Amino acid sequence: MSRKVAVYRKERFNAAHRLHNPALSDEENARIYGKCNLPNYHGHNYELVVEVTGEVDERTGFVIDTKMLSQLVQQYVTDVFDHRNLNLDIPALQGINPTTENVAMVIFDILRPHLDARLTLKIFLYETERNFVAYPA
Amino acid sequence: MSRKVAVYRKERFNAAHRLHNPALSDEENARIYGKCNLPNYHGHNYELVVEVTGEVDERTGFVIDTKMLSQLVQQYVTDVFDHRNLNLDIPALQGINPTTENVAMVIFDILRPHLDARLTLKIFLYETERNFVAYPA
Amino acid sequence: MSRKVAVYRKERFNAAHRLHNPALSDEENARIYGKCNLPNYHGHNYELVVEVTGEVDERTGFVIDTKMLSQLVQQYVTDVFDHRNLNLDIPALQGINPTTENVAMVIFDILRPHLDARLTLKIFLYETERNFVAYPA
Amino acid sequence: MSRKVAVYRKERFNAAHRLHNPALSDEENARIYGKCNLPNYHGHNYELVVEVTGEVDERTGFVIDTKMLSQLVQQYVTDVFDHRNLNLDIPALQGINPTTENVAMVIFDILRPHLDARLTLKIFLYETERNFVAYPA
Amino acid sequence: MSRKVAVYRKERFNAAHRLHNPALSDEENARIYGKCNLPNYHGHNYELVVEVTGEVDERTGFVIDTKMLSQLVQQYVTDVFDHRNLNLDIPALQGINPTTENVAMVIFDILRPHLDARLTLKIFLYETERNFVAYPA
Amino acid sequence: MSRKVAVYRKERFNAAHRLHNPALSDEENARIYGKCNLPNYHGHNYELVVEVTGEVDERTGFVIDTKMLSQLVQQYVTDVFDHRNLNLDIPALQGINPTTENVAMVIFDILRPHLDARLTLKIFLYETERNFVAYPA
Repeated sequence: MSRKVAVYRKERFNAAHRLHNPALSDEENARIYGKCNLPNYHGHNYELVVEVTGEVDERTGFVIDTKMLSQLVQQYVTDVFDHRNLNLDIPALQGINPTTENVAMVIFDILRPHLDARLTLKIFLYETERNFVAYPA
Repeated sequence: MSRKVAVYRKERFNAAHRLHNPALSDEENARIYGKCNLPNYHGHNYELVVEVTGEVDERTGFVIDTKMLSQLVQQYVTDVFDHRNLNLDIPALQGINPTTENVAMVIFDILRPHLDARLTLKIFLYETERNFVAYPA
Repeated sequence: MSRKVAVYRKERFNAAHRLHNPALSDEENARIYGKCNLPNYHGHNYELVVEVTGEVDERTGFVIDTKMLSQLVQQYVTDVFDHRNLNLDIPALQGINPTTENVAMVIFDILRPHLDARLTLKIFLYETERNFVAYPA
Repeated sequence: MSRKVAVYRKERFNAAHRLHNPALSDEENARIYGKCNLPNYHGHNYELVVEVTGEVDERTGFVIDTKMLSQLVQQYVTDVFDHRNLNLDIPALQGINPTTENVAMVIFDILRPHLDARLTLKIFLYETERNFVAYPA
Repeated sequence: MSRKVAVYRKERFNAAHRLHNPALSDEENARIYGKCNLPNYHGHNYELVVEVTGEVDERTGFVIDTKMLSQLVQQYVTDVFDHRNLNLDIPALQGINPTTENVAMVIFDILRPHLDARLTLKIFLYETERNFVAYPA
Repeated sequence: MSRKVAVYRKERFNAAHRLHNPALSDEENARIYGKCNLPNYHGHNYELVVEVTGEVDERTGFVIDTKMLSQLVQQYVTDVFDHRNLNLDIPALQGINPTTENVAMVIFDILRPHLDARLTLKIFLYETERNFVAYPA
């Protein structure tokens, strides 16, 4: 068995959003997204768990320093997303309907280039305690 | 000792808001509220705990039926606030800066008339797991 | 200001119950208690928080040793209630409709004689994360 | 890498049960199941997390609409199991010893036919915060 | 009714400690504190909830700015206590047996002078999820 | 599809530790581990989740009796680690820098021989709610 360990770090951001696909009619948007389509936005306390998997470095005893991982996630994701409107304010989300699935995939694409290629990355994003996603599955 | 019991019911709503006092300059608003003043709103998964205190009814064994209490809170508060913008969409919050303190007091004023006068009401409102208020103190 | 401190200890028990008042008709029981009145019982993971308030003993630095408090609560309450049927199995609950309010008052009456008279006792009983009571209020 | 995302929805039900295998003697049942075998039932606040994995629909931004997923789980599982006795009241559990493992497998078999064949289903069932299972492993 | 609101802010610190009263014999210390008296220390993820009660400022809608409150608690308490040994490293705890009761009273005495005299302060300190205290009671 | 189920049991221990690699200079230790390297230790409320995967025994309805699993984990891990100093007191950790990664791998190696070879074991170790690991990944 490989001695690979998965390391997890949880961060948070509070953001507004609405679900809306401009390629669909208003009726279709309302039917598909219900209250999530309301025009003036609603919001969430998002919880983001980043999983990084790899071999343990014998010198440090770490797969990755979670302090560095936390700073990376804050710099590129939570400081950018926090107290913002996901439909209007985030360059990486322009033109993307901010479903939890889509936001998780965008966060993966933001963080992936900043990690050593030997490390595997997985994103868990909680919109609420009851609705959450994982990517890649 | 009185045989009074406090009964608690937790409900939730997800809403957008920003903190802004139009009587203050933009500079003062930015200084006081920081990121909470950003113009395009952010949002929260609010948790609302309603405390109702009174004598236990010997016939039912209840201070108040929590099913009825839940329906009351949903009808007058969470169904009205959920997936809405607290600055724009809620009649009871018009002209009110939606700090957690102010929202809790408004929720108290909404629910108080619907409860028997012999019952005492207290509101706990959680904006996040780390920031919350109670009213009356 | 007095140097009184409140000390809390959380314990758990898993029990079955149904809500039913034999002094009422079946129709009234069904109307008042709904699903909670179904004949074959349902159940909960109850969480019991015991609050004990008093002066800090200068010798021990404790209001009460929480290990002793835990053992007391286990001996007289949770070991007796755990994996039992609150309607059928608990002598202290015979003839009592096991609403959360009533069970909390019974637990208070069980524990009160075992605590020093200078200490104040309060019971918090969680039937679910969303429905709970405190006694005395 | 496939662009598959796993979507999670948490639901709850409160139920009574006891562990008992009628093919075993009373002594064996008592030895194997301990307090869980007591005749008058106990109960739990079960938490059910349903994981559904698949490609994100470009039109909706969803793997599956969690509102529909929630309604599906409620209709076929939690509305049927909630406030019931798992040994006596649930047709799908007749003749099945309601261990967490067995209940999770039954819930999987109930839900699987209602999901698109391209979606993968996994069940997480929490009997308590400290005892839970996942199926398929 | 006064329009006073209680505002809560939760912070965290991770610290080592042991319970030991040098005025008692080793036997008494072992008997009273059990495993908590072991010589090489153990530790906890402490959670600190600070409650501040007062009138809502009409200009800001705040009793107190929770961002400022958070900074105050970090500067004087959690930055000082975090990743430290409560028996050896904290000037304010010298000569004090670090029971949860005593630590909570010391934190109160540290923070009280930094708050406006019109505000009421209360400390909740969680040593574990199951053992916690409140001061003043 | 195999009828394998994963069973989870959560246990806890409270321990002190510091991160320090004696093969590195003091400056390197301070740079790599920051506050975690402070000499007088700090501590955590560790949460340990043990995952055991296998076929369900038709006779018992269990993959493994969680009561037995709990006793196993307590006997070999949590009773040994609880209220101890991970750097000084645990024979299995002698010479090992107690990062979460390393502690999780040691716990795996302790428990693996006590489980039936047909069962798969995985360890989740939470140092805090925000920092945790899984092994094997």
